[in-house]
Amino acid sequence: MDLLSMTSARTRSEIRPVLWDGQSCLLIDQTALPGSLRTVAIETSEQMATAIRTMIVRGAPAIGVAAAFGMVLGRREADPAQPLPHLQKVASLLRSTRPTAVNLFWAIDRMLAAAHLDSSVAHLEGEAIAILEADIATCRAIGDHGLAALPATPHRLRLLTHCNAGALATAGYGTALGVVRSAHRAHRLERVWADETRPRLQGARLTAWELVQEGIPVTVIADTVAAHLLGKGQIDAVVVGADRIAANGDVANKIGTRGVAILAHYHGVPFFVVAPWSTIDLDLADGSGIAIEERSPEEVRTIDGVVLAPEGTDFYNPAFDVTPAALISGIVTETGVFAPAQLGAALRR
Amino acid sequence: MDLLSMTSARTRSEIRPVLWDGQSCLLIDQTALPGSLRTVAIETSEQMATAIRTMIVRGAPAIGVAAAFGMVLGRREADPAQPLPHLQKVASLLRSTRPTAVNLFWAIDRMLAAAHLDSSVAHLEGEAIAILEADIATCRAIGDHGLAALPATPHRLRLLTHCNAGALATAGYGTALGVVRSAHRAHRLERVWADETRPRLQGARLTAWELVQEGIPVTVIADTVAAHLLGKGQIDAVVVGADRIAANGDVANKIGTRGVAILAHYHGVPFFVVAPWSTIDLDLADGSGIAIEERSPEEVRTIDGVVLAPEGTDFYNPAFDVTPAALISGIVTETGVFAPAQLGAALRR
Repeated sequence: MDLLSMTSARTRSEIRPVLWDGQSCLLIDQTALPGSLRTVAIETSEQMATAIRTMIVRGAPAIGVAAAFGMVLGRREADPAQPLPHLQKVASLLRSTRPTAVNLFWAIDRMLAAAHLDSSVAHLEGEAIAILEADIATCRAIGDHGLAALPATPHRLRLLTHCNAGALATAGYGTALGVVRSAHRAHRLERVWADETRPRLQGARLTAWELVQEGIPVTVIADTVAAHLLGKGQIDAVVVGADRIAANGDVANKIGTRGVAILAHYHGVPFFVVAPWSTIDLDLADGSGIAIEERSPEEVRTIDGVVLAPEGTDFYNPAFDVTPAALISGIVTETGVFAPAQLGAALRR
Repeated sequence: MDLLSMTSARTRSEIRPVLWDGQSCLLIDQTALPGSLRTVAIETSEQMATAIRTMIVRGAPAIGVAAAFGMVLGRREADPAQPLPHLQKVASLLRSTRPTAVNLFWAIDRMLAAAHLDSSVAHLEGEAIAILEADIATCRAIGDHGLAALPATPHRLRLLTHCNAGALATAGYGTALGVVRSAHRAHRLERVWADETRPRLQGARLTAWELVQEGIPVTVIADTVAAHLLGKGQIDAVVVGADRIAANGDVANKIGTRGVAILAHYHGVPFFVVAPWSTIDLDLADGSGIAIEERSPEEVRTIDGVVLAPEGTDFYNPAFDVTPAALISGIVTETGVFAPAQLGAALRR
């Protein structure tokens, strides 16, 4: 009884960026963090597409889960006698929101497949809830596998993160921050160094917010500081998420990840990519084929209305980059930790 | 006659961050750029110390020149019968403003030496003006030597810069941006990629401003983007400044320089450090002995009052880092371009 109430208390306090209340999908508005914590009720498939495009919900696994509920909303909008044509249209709309995250496509395809078996609202709702619950379970398994793969010394580790691969980027618990959480629970975490991650500052805004909520020590640094800390021996391992992993182990993730991987490699510090299996794209031989989303120059030119550069300047704002497999110490999944070169073999099993 | 008027027109339009009007030292307020171009008249040595500390004037060569005029102002404040004790005090005050830039110490020592020969206001004023004029001539020589060291192909080069080693960081023309200017005048510049350079954004705020003034094409990127551009073959060479160079060729420069050097090395792209001889610190065997200034956490936590991270977050804000000599293709000085390993030998000549 005590255990049960503790468990539910802990569950209530955990961060859940995507929830379903039976009628609408409740999203934590991640563009308002860390200033204010507010929830947006998404009631139509178009609203969901906008929420994904404007990054109210972001993070590859989280947008997969959100898109699944977008399909449920789309089913409700459809002609009950012939729901599939509208569902196909909703799928196209949702696919167009963010081109890089493979989980988005994976979740939409799974929902379409489910609709072909049974296109009832109840069936699709059950499928989306299953995707959400599986994602949380996956993150917990990932966190524990990742912890086991971290260096044995020092006992209390200083981990560097980039962007936010946290509870906010998943249905809960997080991928890279799942490893951080598992390390913290096992008393093996000294501190998280969080890259602020320009241009959108997900490290400063989201990773720091998540960790402060749970009392996990976090120090935010400008992205320019990581090489200095690595040189001073202040980082024991790097953990990052992934938006898409090619069959050879090349990884697309938030812009700046490639740089962090090169810096870790130069300093002999292990670099782990942490992601669910659904992030692996079997159709891609290597990273050269990954579409890189380019976002608005405004994300670089201004921060909350503050103009950073003069009139007449050009800007370039790719949202992702590709990290070569050779720089990756391990890919941490819910199944276990793979060397990038093992990935193709594991997939063929 | 035509040539003369062209020359003086060009001279008038050039950026001069430190000027002397015979009574006070006129500084471009670099904390107000790019929003507004305003000049501050510095009339006391204490005002000069504050201007250097608060980065109204910044950039290693520029603060050397500014400190020289700070000594002239200090001489005016002194007892005319016994000026040296007050000058020693002013020297200590000015030295305490920024611990990393060696040019600061070099200029103060040179002014003190001049005062020991002849402590008149006129003599010290002449000495400071000589330092200023020599710095501009030095920068022009540096720019031309740097241009000659750049890769022969492609003809029109794409150069990456970090921070602002420009006219604003010197008495005029710039060091790394001196090379950019010389390349532009020789029609060998395709474009500058400018790292925005968090936390203080000197790349977005100052480098972009300088280059836009002169019609030199510049694209600002978040610091996280350089590895992606290098991976795509979009950068032909990197040019950065220096705050202090050790005898073995290790270089202290703006935080993030070390990271850019490692990324350039990984991608086989040449990395040039561009600085006057006065940046070389003979007393330092290598970079491990360089004091690294740590600045206020506010520079990371906020931008112009916009709060980026939640309450309860820690911040770490070193202003400089050290780039190992092994990563540096050449050190460009007014004398010519040296391999870092040659530096010690050149100094012993």
